[in-house]
Amino acid sequence: MPPPPSVRSFASTTEVVSPGASSVRTTAAAAARNAPSSVPSKLRKAITLESMNQHLRKADYAVRGRLAIRAEELREKLKEKNHKLPFVEVVNANIGNPQAMDQQPITFFRQVLALVQYPALLESEAAATIFPIDARERASVLLQEIGSVGAYSQSQGVPYIRQSIANFIAARDGFSADPGDIYLAGGASSAVSSLMTTICNGPKTGVLIPVPQYPLYSATLTIENATAVPYLLDESTGWGTDTAYIASVVRQTIASGVALKAMVVINPCNPTGSSLTAAKIKDIISLAAEYCFMILADEVYQTNIYEGEFLSFKRMLRELQRDFPGKYDSVELASLHSTSKGMVGECGQRGGYLELVGFDPEVREELYKLISISLCPVVTGQVLTELMVNPPKEGDESYPLYKKEYDTIYTALRERAMTLFDAFKEMEGVRCQEPKGAMYLFPTITLPAKAIQEAQRLNEEPDEFYCLQLLESTGVCVVPGSGFGQKDGTFHFRTTFLAPGKEYVDRMLAFHKEFLEKFS
Amino acid sequence: MPPPPSVRSFASTTEVVSPGASSVRTTAAAAARNAPSSVPSKLRKAITLESMNQHLRKADYAVRGRLAIRAEELREKLKEKNHKLPFVEVVNANIGNPQAMDQQPITFFRQVLALVQYPALLESEAAATIFPIDARERASVLLQEIGSVGAYSQSQGVPYIRQSIANFIAARDGFSADPGDIYLAGGASSAVSSLMTTICNGPKTGVLIPVPQYPLYSATLTIENATAVPYLLDESTGWGTDTAYIASVVRQTIASGVALKAMVVINPCNPTGSSLTAAKIKDIISLAAEYCFMILADEVYQTNIYEGEFLSFKRMLRELQRDFPGKYDSVELASLHSTSKGMVGECGQRGGYLELVGFDPEVREELYKLISISLCPVVTGQVLTELMVNPPKEGDESYPLYKKEYDTIYTALRERAMTLFDAFKEMEGVRCQEPKGAMYLFPTITLPAKAIQEAQRLNEEPDEFYCLQLLESTGVCVVPGSGFGQKDGTFHFRTTFLAPGKEYVDRMLAFHKEFLEKFS
Repeated sequence: MPPPPSVRSFASTTEVVSPGASSVRTTAAAAARNAPSSVPSKLRKAITLESMNQHLRKADYAVRGRLAIRAEELREKLKEKNHKLPFVEVVNANIGNPQAMDQQPITFFRQVLALVQYPALLESEAAATIFPIDARERASVLLQEIGSVGAYSQSQGVPYIRQSIANFIAARDGFSADPGDIYLAGGASSAVSSLMTTICNGPKTGVLIPVPQYPLYSATLTIENATAVPYLLDESTGWGTDTAYIASVVRQTIASGVALKAMVVINPCNPTGSSLTAAKIKDIISLAAEYCFMILADEVYQTNIYEGEFLSFKRMLRELQRDFPGKYDSVELASLHSTSKGMVGECGQRGGYLELVGFDPEVREELYKLISISLCPVVTGQVLTELMVNPPKEGDESYPLYKKEYDTIYTALRERAMTLFDAFKEMEGVRCQEPKGAMYLFPTITLPAKAIQEAQRLNEEPDEFYCLQLLESTGVCVVPGSGFGQKDGTFHFRTTFLAPGKEYVDRMLAFHKEFLEKFS
Repeated sequence: MPPPPSVRSFASTTEVVSPGASSVRTTAAAAARNAPSSVPSKLRKAITLESMNQHLRKADYAVRGRLAIRAEELREKLKEKNHKLPFVEVVNANIGNPQAMDQQPITFFRQVLALVQYPALLESEAAATIFPIDARERASVLLQEIGSVGAYSQSQGVPYIRQSIANFIAARDGFSADPGDIYLAGGASSAVSSLMTTICNGPKTGVLIPVPQYPLYSATLTIENATAVPYLLDESTGWGTDTAYIASVVRQTIASGVALKAMVVINPCNPTGSSLTAAKIKDIISLAAEYCFMILADEVYQTNIYEGEFLSFKRMLRELQRDFPGKYDSVELASLHSTSKGMVGECGQRGGYLELVGFDPEVREELYKLISISLCPVVTGQVLTELMVNPPKEGDESYPLYKKEYDTIYTALRERAMTLFDAFKEMEGVRCQEPKGAMYLFPTITLPAKAIQEAQRLNEEPDEFYCLQLLESTGVCVVPGSGFGQKDGTFHFRTTFLAPGKEYVDRMLAFHKEFLEKFS
C-alpha cells in the first residue's frame, strides 16, 4: 500500500499502525514469544562496525588521524615530571591552526565581535574609551541588520552580509557579483559537505579530485558513495596541472560510463603550496565547458600568496565569457572562501562562504532545503566573514593598527615558510618546491630501502613510518603524503609553516640525519 | 586492478593515469573527436534535478518550507508604502527563534562571550567597571583552557567544557557522567546529522520516529536513504506513548526484515508540547533492551517544562541499571541538549552537545572520524554551552541578575502559552492539549468539507491550505500538521508561543471565525 500522506516525505516507511491495534500489554515474556528467534542477547549492540554506515567506515581522514592522536598523547606525557621525552614541546605542524601557534587575531575583528555579543557596550561611556569609533559604528550597523547574534538568520546567511561579500568579490575580480549567489557556511568544510551531498547520486557520480589533495574531498566522496576520479598534479612543474593529461582522464572516465559531474581544484593548493596561472585556470574552465562538469574551486588560501597575485576562477570565467560570448555560459562554478586561513586565521569561529555561478535554479532550491535543515550557520562566524571582506579602509581610526597587524602576520608566515624551505634544502634526499601559497610545504623524501622494509614489517606506509619516527623523536607532528594521495613509489609529508622559531626546524634536521644513518 | 595505495581510501576510483600519458595537446576539436557522441550541448548543466542526489530531492522540511518563504515575501511587501495588506507585522510562529521575538539574552552569558572574543578587556580598567568579577573570572578560566576562540579545538570539544557538562549531567540526574562520552556540536541538528550518518546503512536500516515529529528526523533519514518507521503519539492521552502499540510496531518491523537500529524520542515534545512520565520512559528503555535498538533522546527542551519536573532518559536508564543489575547494561543511549532553546534561546550561536552511553567503542571511533572531517564545532558555541550548564550560583556577583532574567523569561513563556491556549479553547472545532513543555502548541482543527474540497482543488494539504489562508489574512506564520506527520484524516498546525502580546492572537481568532463562515 502507498504510505499515508502523513509520512509521504519519508524515503521508505513501514505502514503506520494506530495505537490500540495491539491491546495486549506487552511483557518481556510476551515480547520474547512474539519476537523472531533472532531476539538479541543482553550484550549485543544495535550499532556495530558491521551494521553501521559502511561508507563512513571506508573513509580516511589523515589530518586528524593516527599521528594527531599520538601527538595528543605525547602532549599529555610532557606534563609528567620525569617524562624522559627527548623534546619539551609538541609542535602541531599537521593542521593549519594559526592561533594555536602564536598568530594573534586582528584587533578590529575581535572588537566588533565583542560588541555584537554584548551590545550594552555601545551605550557604555567607559567602553567608548576602549573601542574605536569605526568598530562601534560597524557593530551598530551589523546589529541593525541582524538583530541579535543569538537569533537564527536566513539559512543562506544575513542578506546584508551577503551583499558585503558580493561587493568584495566584485572589487577583487572586476566583475559584478550577486548576493543571491552567496551561501554563508560554518566553515568551508561544511559548505563542501552540503555541496557534495547535493550533487552526489551514488557510485556512477564521478568527481575529479587532485592527487595530492586535502582529504576532506576523498573522505566526503567516500561517505557519499560517489566515485573519486584522481588526477595527478605534476611535481616536476611545481605541482601544476597538465591540461592534456587531465583531458585524457576526463575522456577515460566518460568512456568508462561514470557520469563526470565535478572537478575539485584547490588553489592555492593544499597540500602542495602551489598556485595556478591564468592560462592553467582557463584551460580547466575550457575542459569544464567542453565536457560539462561543475568546478569546485577551493580558494580558502587566496590571501596566502607569496609570489605573484591570486587569480580567482570566477574572474577567469567572467573573462572567458566576455572574450568568447556564448561559449562559456553553461559553466557551473562553486567557489569557497573561509575566515580560517589567510591573515584572519580564525579557525574556531567557523566562518566562510560558497558562491554559486551558473547553477540550475531548481538544484539551488534543493541545496537551500538541505542547508535549511541545519537552520543557519553560526551568526558570529557570518559577522567575522563580513569583517574579513570589508576591513578598515585608509582613513578609518582602526586602519593603521589593522594594516600593521595584517602585514606582520603576512611577513611572519613568509619568513617561516622560507626558514623551513631552507632547512629542507639541507636535508639529504629531500626535495621541496619553493613556497608560493597556502600554509604548507609538501617535500618529497627519498627513503632508504631498509626504512621501507621496516615500515612494511610494521604494516605502515613508508612515509607514515617516517612521520611517526619524526614525532617520537622531535615532537613535531606532520602528515604523511599517503594521507593526501601521491604518485606510486613516491613519498612525501605535509607540514605547515606556522610554528615560530627555528628550534623545531633544527630538531627535524637532526632527526633526518639520524634516520638516514640508522637505515642506510 | 586494485586501486594504487595513493587512492586506497576512496570509495571507488578510476585508475590513476600519469601526466604525459596523453602527449597530444587537447583542443576543442580533438576533444570533440575523442569524446563520446554524448558530449553535452552548451546549455546543458552538469547538475540537474534528474542527475543530483535523488534522496535529497525526496526530503521534506516544512519548518522553513513554503509558508516560511511566503512569510518572507509578505515581510518585504510590508515595507512598501501602500502595501494594502490587512496586517502591519509578520509573526514567525513557525520556528522556535526566541531572540527574533523579544526574548533578551542572559547578560552574564553575553558578557563572558564578549570577554573571550576580546581578551584585552580583561586587562582594561575601564572594562573592570562594566564587567562583574565572576564574568571576568569565568572568561579567564575559559581562555586558559581554550587558548584562543579563534583556534580549532579538539573535534569532540574542549576537554574542560566536556568536564563541565559532565558535572551538570551528574547534578541533574544524580548519577555520574563521563566527559569522554560528551561530544560538543554546532547545534543539536548537526549532532543528529552526524549520528544518523554513522548509524544508517541503507534502506534496511530502520529508525522509529514519532508521528508527529520534528521533520529534522524524517528529512535526515530520507537523505540517508534509511527507513523511517513511524509510531503514532496518542493525542487522546495528551500525545503520550502507547508502549504496547510501539512494541507491536517494533515486532512488525523486525518481522518485515528491516533491521531496527534506533528509536527517536523527543521529550519534551516538539511539536506537541507534551512531556513523558518516568513510567513511559522506562517502558521505552525496556523495549530498547528487549529488541536491541539505540535510543536517540532529543531533550533540547529540558528546561521548557511548565508542569512537573524534567526526567532525562539517562537518569531513567541509570535507575533501571541500578534496580535490575545486568538487565539494561547493553542499552545504547544518545541524548541531545542545546543552547538554542530553554531560557538561553541563543539559536544563532550554534551550541549544543550529544552524550553517548553504552556505545561500541569502535563505532564511537568512526563517529569521531566523521566529526573530525568538519574539524570542530564553533568554539564560542562551546563556551556558551559551558555557561548554560554552569551558570552563576547564589553568592556570585551576577547571580541576582541572572536569576531575575531567567525567571522573567520563564514566566513570559508560560503566560504566552496560556494566552494562546485560552484562545484555542474559544475557537470552534479546535482542540488543544494544555501546554506542558517545549515552545509549541499543536492544536487539532476540524476543517469544513468545503475547505477540504478547496484545498484538494488547489492540490494543497487541507491544513496547509488553512495555514496559508491564516498567513495571508493575519501575517501569522505557523506550520501545518502535515509537515510533522499526523494520523490520517486529522489536521493540525504547530505554533510557537514566543510572540509577545495578544494582538496577533486576536487576529487568529477573527480569521478562524471568518474561515469557518466562508467554508461552511
